[in-house]
Amino acid sequence: MTYFTRASAFAPGGIGNVGPGLDVLGAAVAGAGDTVVAEWCDTPGITIRATGHPDLPTDARRHTSGVAARAVVRAATSLGVTAPAGGIALSVTKGLPLSGGQGGSAASAVAGAAATNALLGSPLDTPALLAACLEAEEMVAGRHLDNIAPSLLGGIVLVRSIDPIDVVSLPVPPALRVVMAHPNQRLRTADARAVLPRDIPRAVVIHQLAQVSAMVAALYTGNLPLLGRALDDRIAEPARARLLPGFLEAKAAALAAGALGGSISGAGPTAFALCDGASVAARVADAMRAAYAGAGLTAHVRVAEIDTAGTRVEHHTS
Amino acid sequence: MTYFTRASAFAPGGIGNVGPGLDVLGAAVAGAGDTVVAEWCDTPGITIRATGHPDLPTDARRHTSGVAARAVVRAATSLGVTAPAGGIALSVTKGLPLSGGQGGSAASAVAGAAATNALLGSPLDTPALLAACLEAEEMVAGRHLDNIAPSLLGGIVLVRSIDPIDVVSLPVPPALRVVMAHPNQRLRTADARAVLPRDIPRAVVIHQLAQVSAMVAALYTGNLPLLGRALDDRIAEPARARLLPGFLEAKAAALAAGALGGSISGAGPTAFALCDGASVAARVADAMRAAYAGAGLTAHVRVAEIDTAGTRVEHHTS
Repeated sequence: MTYFTRASAFAPGGIGNVGPGLDVLGAAVAGAGDTVVAEWCDTPGITIRATGHPDLPTDARRHTSGVAARAVVRAATSLGVTAPAGGIALSVTKGLPLSGGQGGSAASAVAGAAATNALLGSPLDTPALLAACLEAEEMVAGRHLDNIAPSLLGGIVLVRSIDPIDVVSLPVPPALRVVMAHPNQRLRTADARAVLPRDIPRAVVIHQLAQVSAMVAALYTGNLPLLGRALDDRIAEPARARLLPGFLEAKAAALAAGALGGSISGAGPTAFALCDGASVAARVADAMRAAYAGAGLTAHVRVAEIDTAGTRVEHHTS
Repeated sequence: MTYFTRASAFAPGGIGNVGPGLDVLGAAVAGAGDTVVAEWCDTPGITIRATGHPDLPTDARRHTSGVAARAVVRAATSLGVTAPAGGIALSVTKGLPLSGGQGGSAASAVAGAAATNALLGSPLDTPALLAACLEAEEMVAGRHLDNIAPSLLGGIVLVRSIDPIDVVSLPVPPALRVVMAHPNQRLRTADARAVLPRDIPRAVVIHQLAQVSAMVAALYTGNLPLLGRALDDRIAEPARARLLPGFLEAKAAALAAGALGGSISGAGPTAFALCDGASVAARVADAMRAAYAGAGLTAHVRVAEIDTAGTRVEHHTS
């Protein structure tokens, strides 16, 4: 077994709950992510040296990168991997906003797990890495993989099952562009989940079943107009829109500017729009920024491609 | 405009509510269907000359082929089509069981609509034909297109929306075989719909969203094991299984004999199993027949391919 002295991993953020795909459909979005450097240290167990943000816990049992790293070490040990004496120190660089709805907790978990796995000589396969990250995500955001799986694998991912883990990578139409609009408002993930209905009327369920299936069909056929028609969430979006001043205006502005469709990214407050091509996306970005401004909110808005690479790992031997 | 003196249409039956795809996923199954012959007659309006079954209404306003034919004439008239004086007589030959859960009411509607449209010179396009059939299906089985659309178009069809009508034809893996097992028990469609839950817990909804999406992904990729794992309905099947003695035993026997998965076809009582190849399907058919026999029921069991042709129309000028 080869041990490296240091390994780093960059994991992209993205969109969870893509439209009607509550907890089951996620996309990695290029341009922003979290980076974790893992290295051997004298302190036993997992230590977090820096979190990259003053609001984040440095207790490794409370930070998703630490929880995921601990789970990786545990799984590696059960596979017979023996690490050198001492422990592992993690340094986290947050490139994603906290509580932004851009999969920041998942990206930290994935980067922490991937860097730690690399440091140990990569004993864990993809399902085992996903399982380790799921433990971390469960602590802060609920037991779901729709941010974790695309952050690790890249692209747009359908989570068929978390027990056992069974995920499907979907094709990404090359012209697809994403507008991510992050208004300066806070929405705690716990509050966003608390407003989800406990029971859902059958007619709404049937609508949602049809839409999420049609999104999958649209991705396989590259049918972007169908993707837009199917991007219609009647479960989470109506419940959460009430908590997000400016969202409905931003969505309406995006559609009027030519977006295929849009919804809330993850648990919010970030809103996203899907667009056919970069030039439409640029107009949609301007329209969403202006709509939030009209509602008294400054929004950080960017145009991005789907990140098809997923997590990038680098090994260092000195 | 050319008028024919007679037109006939054969429309296949099939599976509605395919597994988790309640009201949204349907498949046409080869080998059994309904045939309608439409011809001009002296009696104004739509007349049904023969229904092919003593239990079926001969009142054209109560038989789905008549309702669909009336809707076709109305739509054609609104497009400026003027028919000869007199009316249209329909002769129906039922190849599908009544209240069998094999899409018999839909097939009669589709055959009636297609034959009438052909007699009129085919003024209606596919969406208009689907709308005419939907009117008929709504009268007897509820407002859904998951039997109608595959019966008309063939193959496996996803119904994204009925208002407006928006359907997606999905790829059919060539090795896919269907076992249709029709036990000698009656289950009224109205009773089968009455037991569906009005509200559905969110965790069940999320599961169902994931499964139906994964079925679509499996069809596009030809991944039959994934198709089987995703064929897991937790909404309609548990509610209806209680009304269908022998079903759970037949399903278990199908899985034990190598079926990819199985569920209730439409509103039942027919059970179906999906299989990878004809030889597995033959074993599964035997196993399902034996399981029903063990429950004291005689079952008519057949192995079939997906009917990819859909409705066949023939014109006759004499």
